[in-house]
Amino acid sequence: MDKEFFKTISPGAFAGLLRGFAPLAAESAGLLEAHTRYLSEDVVAGEALPLVSRSCMDGYALRASDAFGAGESNPAYLECAAELAVDQVYSRELPPGQCVSIVTGGSLPAGADAVVMIEHTARMGAGTVEIRRSPAPGEHVMLAGEDAAKGRVALAAGTRLRPQEIGLLAALGRDRVMVRARPKVGIISTGDEVVPVTSDVRPGQVRDVNSHALACQVREAGGEARLYPLVPDDREALRAALEEALAASDVVLASGGSSVGARDYTVAAVASIEGAEVLAHGVAMRPGKPVLLARVGDKAVIGLPGQVTSSQVVMIALGLPFLRHLQGDAVAFERLGPVVVAALARNLPSARGREDFIRVRLQHRPGQVPLAHPLLGKSGLLSTMVAAGGLTRIEAEREGLAQGSLIEVIVL
Amino acid sequence: MDKEFFKTISPGAFAGLLRGFAPLAAESAGLLEAHTRYLSEDVVAGEALPLVSRSCMDGYALRASDAFGAGESNPAYLECAAELAVDQVYSRELPPGQCVSIVTGGSLPAGADAVVMIEHTARMGAGTVEIRRSPAPGEHVMLAGEDAAKGRVALAAGTRLRPQEIGLLAALGRDRVMVRARPKVGIISTGDEVVPVTSDVRPGQVRDVNSHALACQVREAGGEARLYPLVPDDREALRAALEEALAASDVVLASGGSSVGARDYTVAAVASIEGAEVLAHGVAMRPGKPVLLARVGDKAVIGLPGQVTSSQVVMIALGLPFLRHLQGDAVAFERLGPVVVAALARNLPSARGREDFIRVRLQHRPGQVPLAHPLLGKSGLLSTMVAAGGLTRIEAEREGLAQGSLIEVIVL
Repeated sequence: MDKEFFKTISPGAFAGLLRGFAPLAAESAGLLEAHTRYLSEDVVAGEALPLVSRSCMDGYALRASDAFGAGESNPAYLECAAELAVDQVYSRELPPGQCVSIVTGGSLPAGADAVVMIEHTARMGAGTVEIRRSPAPGEHVMLAGEDAAKGRVALAAGTRLRPQEIGLLAALGRDRVMVRARPKVGIISTGDEVVPVTSDVRPGQVRDVNSHALACQVREAGGEARLYPLVPDDREALRAALEEALAASDVVLASGGSSVGARDYTVAAVASIEGAEVLAHGVAMRPGKPVLLARVGDKAVIGLPGQVTSSQVVMIALGLPFLRHLQGDAVAFERLGPVVVAALARNLPSARGREDFIRVRLQHRPGQVPLAHPLLGKSGLLSTMVAAGGLTRIEAEREGLAQGSLIEVIVL
Repeated sequence: MDKEFFKTISPGAFAGLLRGFAPLAAESAGLLEAHTRYLSEDVVAGEALPLVSRSCMDGYALRASDAFGAGESNPAYLECAAELAVDQVYSRELPPGQCVSIVTGGSLPAGADAVVMIEHTARMGAGTVEIRRSPAPGEHVMLAGEDAAKGRVALAAGTRLRPQEIGLLAALGRDRVMVRARPKVGIISTGDEVVPVTSDVRPGQVRDVNSHALACQVREAGGEARLYPLVPDDREALRAALEEALAASDVVLASGGSSVGARDYTVAAVASIEGAEVLAHGVAMRPGKPVLLARVGDKAVIGLPGQVTSSQVVMIALGLPFLRHLQGDAVAFERLGPVVVAALARNLPSARGREDFIRVRLQHRPGQVPLAHPLLGKSGLLSTMVAAGGLTRIEAEREGLAQGSLIEVIVL
C-alpha cells in the first residue's frame, strides 16, 4: 500500500479535487422534466414579454395625462371608447380624452399608458366614466418587454429551474430547454457484517442502511441512484462490483471499509482498476475522516465511511455538492444546502486542525433567530441524525464556538 | 349568483376549511418509494438497535474499571484475549484483566463496557496491550438498544421520511412501511386569452404559464400533477373539464378567471357540479384575493387567480400546505415551507385587514442574519418571482414593518 494514499487533506482541498471533474453533458428536456435541473444554455427571449402592455387590474386604460390631478372631490370625466375582453385588441390609437374598459391581463390600446382600478371609477351613463384617482404613467400596467426584452437573456446558463423559472420558460414559448444531465450514481455497500434489509440479524451483523439512505440523498441532490448488491470485504469482489457500477454510472459511491483492514481493501480495489487514479484518501473532518476519491476516466469513485451517520454527513459536506456541481451549479461548494442562521444554545468545543460537522436541533422562536442545540454524544447513532434538523460546520482553525454565536446551519 | 359566494375570509379561516378535508388513505410503500412521504403508522422496533453493544472506533474493548486511572505516564496492561473481525462475536464473557482487539462496528464481548481507541494503546508483545487512557464506562460504545429500544416506537406516525429516517427503517428491517398516499392533483388553466406553450402568440394572447408552474409546485409538495387541456371562458366547458379532472384526482386546481366575468364562470361552473359545495370565495390576502374553495364529496376544487404570480403565491400560502396536510403533515399550515429569519432591508408598508405576501431577495452576510430586500413594483411580473429567494408574510393586523425587523422568510 502506497503510504501517500493516506495523506489527509482539508475538506476545501477535497472539494477542489471534486471541482476538477467537468459538469455532465447537456441534453434537451421537456419543461416538466427540466424542473429542479440547471440550464446549460442562456435562454434568450424571442419576443418581448409581455408582447404588448397589459393591465394588472380590472378598470379603465387611459392616458395618465388625461386624468392628471383627478381625485374624489375633483374627478376627471372620460369617454369610454370600448369594452375590451381579455383577448381583445383595440385596433386604433386611443384618442385623447377617451378610455377603454379593460380586465386583468387585457392588452392596452396604443396611446394608453396607465390603468385606473374599477374601484376608483364610476359609470355616469352615456358612455362617460368618472375617474377619481390621478394615475401615474405606467401604473397597474405590465409594460411590453418588462418581464423579458426581445433578444435579451431571460435566464442564464447555470440557473436552477424552480417552478417560477419553468413558468417563465413557458411564457417565452420554450417547451424544451437544454439542461445538464442528471448524474447516474451507483451505490455499493460493503462489509462482511452487512446483510440485506429483509434479513434477520444475529449479533455481529447489521442491516444495510447506507444503500438506502445514500440513494435518498442522491435523489434529493438531483441524481439518479442505482443500488448494487452487497459486497463482502474482499478486494477482488469489490473491484468487480466497482467496475460493473462504473460502466453504468457517472459516480460510484462505495460505503464501508469501516475497519482498518476493510479500508485497505477499498483503496486497493479502486487502485487496481485499469486507469484509476487515487486523488485523495483521508479528509480532515469529523465525522468522516476515511474518505477516498479516485478518478477513472471522467468518472469518480468516492469511498465513504461505513458508519452510517458519517457517510451521510460526508455526503452533505462533499458528495451532494459534487452532484450539484456535475449538474452545472456554479456555487455548489459555497452553499452546502439551504442554510439558516441560528444562535448557538451552548458552548461548543472543537479541536483545531479539522472541520467538525455538528448535528443540531433547531428550536424556532417567534421574532428571533432559531436556537441551535448541539446534539452531542455518540455520533454513530442513527437516532442523532433523526433528531437533527440541521448540521453546522466549525472551521478547522477554530477551537470552538461560544454560546449565543450566530452560526450557519445546513437544514436537513 | 349568490352574493355570499363573494364573502372574503381570512387566510387563517381558509386554512381551517382546508384542514377539514381528511388526510388521504394509507398505503404500503417500499423504502425508496417512501422517501419524502409521511408515515401513517407508528414504527415499533422489533428488536434492539443496535442488537448488541458495538464499538464506534478501532481499538480495544475492555472493562473500563480494568484501566481506571490509566494515562501516558501510568499505563494499564491487559492481556489481549482475541482479535475480533467486524462480524465476529466473542463467545464467552470477557475475563477481568483482559481485552479484545475490535474494529469499528464490531460487537463487544459480554462484560466489556468501553473501547479505548487504538491511538491510545500499544502492543507490547506476548499478547499484552498497553492502555494509555482511562476509559469511561460506555465510552466509544453504541449500547444495545441505544438507537431504538425493542418494542418502543422508533418513528411516530406523521414523521416525514428524510434520508436518515429511511436509514433507520432499513436498520430496523422494514423494507416496506405504511405512508399516506400522494395527492393526485388535476390542473386546469382557463381563459380565452391563454394558448399552449408551443403556440405563437399575437397581442391579446399569453401562453399557458400556470399549468406548468403549478405542476412543479405540486410535485415539490409531494403531489402527482396531471395537466388537462386549456379551457376557454365558458361555464359548460369548464364544468365538463372539472368533472373529468375530479374523476381522476383528489384535488383540482383551476387557475384563471382573472377577469370579473371569468370569475363568475368559475364559481358558476363549480357550483353546477352535482354535490358541490362552495366553501369560500375570496381570501383577504394580497396577491391572491379571488380564491375559490369547493368540496365535491371528499375532493377539493381550488380556484386560483389567473395571474401567474398570484397563483404561485396562493399555492405557497394555502395550496402546498393543503397538499402536505393531505399526506399527514400535522403542522402543514403552521410551517409554510423551509423558513429563514432575516432582517428587513427597508421599511415595508402594508394595509391593515389583509395578509400581504411580499417577495424578497435574500442577501447572505457572513456571521449575520441575511438581509431581506423587498421586491416591490408590479406583482404580476414573472421576473419578480424569478428574482425572489423567498416570500414573507405581513399579518393582517399590521400596518407594515420597520427596517431592521427580524422577519420569517419562506425560502423558495
